Amino acid sequence: MKPSLPQGTRDFNAEVIYRRRFILDTITDVFELYGFEPLETPAMENLETLLGKYGEEGDKLIFRILNNGLDHPGRRAEAVTAFGNILAGRNEPLITERALRYDLTIPFARYVSMNLSRLTLPFKRYQIQPVWRADRPQKGRYREFYQCDADVAGTTSLISDAEFALIYLQVFERLKVEIEVKINSRRILSALAEACGASEHFTAITVAIDKLDKIGLEKVKEELAAGGLQPEQISLIQACLTLSGNNEERLSKASLLLGNTASGLQGISELTTILEYIATARKDRPADIYVDFTLARGLNYYTGTIFEVKAKNIVMGSIGGGGRYDDLTGLFDLPGIPGVGISFGVDRIYDVMNELNLFPQTVDAAPKVLFFNLGVLESKAAFTAMQELRSGGTACELFYEHVRMDRQFKYANKKRMAYAVIIGSRELEQGTCVVKDLLHEKQVSMPLTDLSSYFSR
Amino acid sequence: MKPSLPQGTRDFNAEVIYRRRFILDTITDVFELYGFEPLETPAMENLETLLGKYGEEGDKLIFRILNNGLDHPGRRAEAVTAFGNILAGRNEPLITERALRYDLTIPFARYVSMNLSRLTLPFKRYQIQPVWRADRPQKGRYREFYQCDADVAGTTSLISDAEFALIYLQVFERLKVEIEVKINSRRILSALAEACGASEHFTAITVAIDKLDKIGLEKVKEELAAGGLQPEQISLIQACLTLSGNNEERLSKASLLLGNTASGLQGISELTTILEYIATARKDRPADIYVDFTLARGLNYYTGTIFEVKAKNIVMGSIGGGGRYDDLTGLFDLPGIPGVGISFGVDRIYDVMNELNLFPQTVDAAPKVLFFNLGVLESKAAFTAMQELRSGGTACELFYEHVRMDRQFKYANKKRMAYAVIIGSRELEQGTCVVKDLLHEKQVSMPLTDLSSYFSR
Repeated sequence: MKPSLPQGTRDFNAEVIYRRRFILDTITDVFELYGFEPLETPAMENLETLLGKYGEEGDKLIFRILNNGLDHPGRRAEAVTAFGNILAGRNEPLITERALRYDLTIPFARYVSMNLSRLTLPFKRYQIQPVWRADRPQKGRYREFYQCDADVAGTTSLISDAEFALIYLQVFERLKVEIEVKINSRRILSALAEACGASEHFTAITVAIDKLDKIGLEKVKEELAAGGLQPEQISLIQACLTLSGNNEERLSKASLLLGNTASGLQGISELTTILEYIATARKDRPADIYVDFTLARGLNYYTGTIFEVKAKNIVMGSIGGGGRYDDLTGLFDLPGIPGVGISFGVDRIYDVMNELNLFPQTVDAAPKVLFFNLGVLESKAAFTAMQELRSGGTACELFYEHVRMDRQFKYANKKRMAYAVIIGSRELEQGTCVVKDLLHEKQVSMPLTDLSSYFSR
Repeated sequence: MKPSLPQGTRDFNAEVIYRRRFILDTITDVFELYGFEPLETPAMENLETLLGKYGEEGDKLIFRILNNGLDHPGRRAEAVTAFGNILAGRNEPLITERALRYDLTIPFARYVSMNLSRLTLPFKRYQIQPVWRADRPQKGRYREFYQCDADVAGTTSLISDAEFALIYLQVFERLKVEIEVKINSRRILSALAEACGASEHFTAITVAIDKLDKIGLEKVKEELAAGGLQPEQISLIQACLTLSGNNEERLSKASLLLGNTASGLQGISELTTILEYIATARKDRPADIYVDFTLARGLNYYTGTIFEVKAKNIVMGSIGGGGRYDDLTGLFDLPGIPGVGISFGVDRIYDVMNELNLFPQTVDAAPKVLFFNLGVLESKAAFTAMQELRSGGTACELFYEHVRMDRQFKYANKKRMAYAVIIGSRELEQGTCVVKDLLHEKQVSMPLTDLSSYFSR
């Protein structure tokens, strides 16, 4: 058989892993600097934990796991009937009762619900794990991909919203990716619908605004008109979407447009507070934060602040997003726990850094040393020396076979080794070795006893 | 609904993750010191990649994934027929064509087969990922658990066998777990069957010897007798299993018993070579390596050297094992690639270290600092100070709400924070703060500008 990979999945080789690790370690470090603690949940959840949480379309994209032991002879008739339910699009625990994690938010909510009595609120967790979706694979869209989330459960304090913006800024400063953080509030979108006298069209307005980036203002207006909005309502929306000036100016103009609604006042005051905290933390380096009333973040559970991060100097979808939600665990019969969280789009960040050539040259593993194999006694001398190098933290290996030098050089080159160490019969006699710097094509001879300190420089 | 976890799966909280990370980072470091590179493969493999690789019992423990879109109306009749095949215990791609990874060896073999033309042989990879098995859950046995493997593909050199023993020794030295590495060769087991004139009973002999630890010598002899072996054959086996003396002595006694067989000679000579290389690398610290002719490593694909690692001072199954196999990728139509590899039992290593109290006290995240929230202006001053601390690598957070101090102290204690920083109205006026060392119940007042250097000591 010719082996292959399931559609939409990937193997990651060393080169890719080192680069992904650089991104993920940076994010982890920053999460921990802000007091977040790691959580890991199993790949499988009970199917009923996941069903109904991602909308009808989402349910169809959940990978379900076939129960084991279906071939038990005593249960076949029952199984055939149950399979009929699957064919009718219904859930059927007799056939499948477990499924693969579809995102990290529902498992987080499930964890908080199950462990609430043991947790200290506010509970700040981060989670970096793969998720699985039966989406049609296409460029940049995979059936297995990593999500990288941080959330705070159990506080309405806007300090946490401000900190998430700071986390974005600090992570991307460390990665040397230039970004803009866009911020808005769902309350402002809701005030906009209210100010138009079209609160019943809130969802339609949000959906239309969410498309602004893709289809442009004229098409959005057409969509709003098609949805039944009157010209004067549409011009109020247009006015709000096209406000000019810096953040403070736009917020103050918005309060003229929306200040007659409670949610407008609250949204504007919340954004103002968040911006103040951010400015306080970054006195010397004003942040690239942009209050963007056109930001909608699709149809999801956000109720307050929403975030989105875009990379500069490249055409690419958002590389991060998040927001505040009123009720994290209500779905699990535990209402009243508000939360706020963000997510990093690891695959896209990888693509941005690759295209803009932002990975540091040192991102690959430390320079490695190949000891040549020039015979049994010679390789044993190498073996002793290598053990000392490894104790000092230098990665090294011995060529396994005693073959011609050119084959050993070829291996060193292909593996992009930085150094070759040669111990031949003459060196063995003298207790020395020759170190070849393969990148700079230099070589130096030294006593074997100096080797460890040479590499630990 | 009351949420729950699927049987046999676990959430890992921060405390457990920090400890597991300590183990996994140590293993990763050592793998890389020996020139191994990371590989990650997807959780899902095509079902046909996995089926038939783990024996009949293994096949039943593979978690299969239900195909999506089964409720498509045009294909129902076909699906019902196909489901009949599942009920009859057969594979049926119309119902399920993907499955969860069952181990890391087959995905590694699949990867080597698919990428051989791009790989430089010998290919040294390590892989640390979860696997899934539909085993009946019990104490210490989970349906999702991590495997942690390193393998070399494409060399028959015994240097690599010796290095795997060194890797075990170095990892457990770093973890401060006292171990014994047992080593044997399948060739010696095969020679034993041959020397008895019972080569056709090789498997039965191996299976019986594998149980020695559990059932004792007398029961093993009974089992061999029940399997049709004659008393003089059984005494030869007993003689080999009970050889006394140090490694060299036992090897030389074994060569008297088995030296008339080609595989006996080869096995003994290979073990001797491996021990020589290990001794060369560890001149100053003789290693706890034990040649154990009773080691069999169950019914698997090993053909040469086999390893097993046991922790001392505790009753616990093996915490590592591995061996050499002749043909890694033959199952994927690519014969002739030999390999050798080892595995670390992460869950058991965790249990050993926990029971013997071997985790260093510093294994939890760095000491954290809680800034008290004593009002809007006070918390903004804290916000500025925190940002500087974080730039210097100190993890800290601000209590989100302005509430009574005792509630803030309680949070700091519950989260096991090391320090509290208090900026009240008086401190704000003076540009100072009070730092409380919560673990040693001391406090000190200092200018806010000194805080960063105080914590970066």
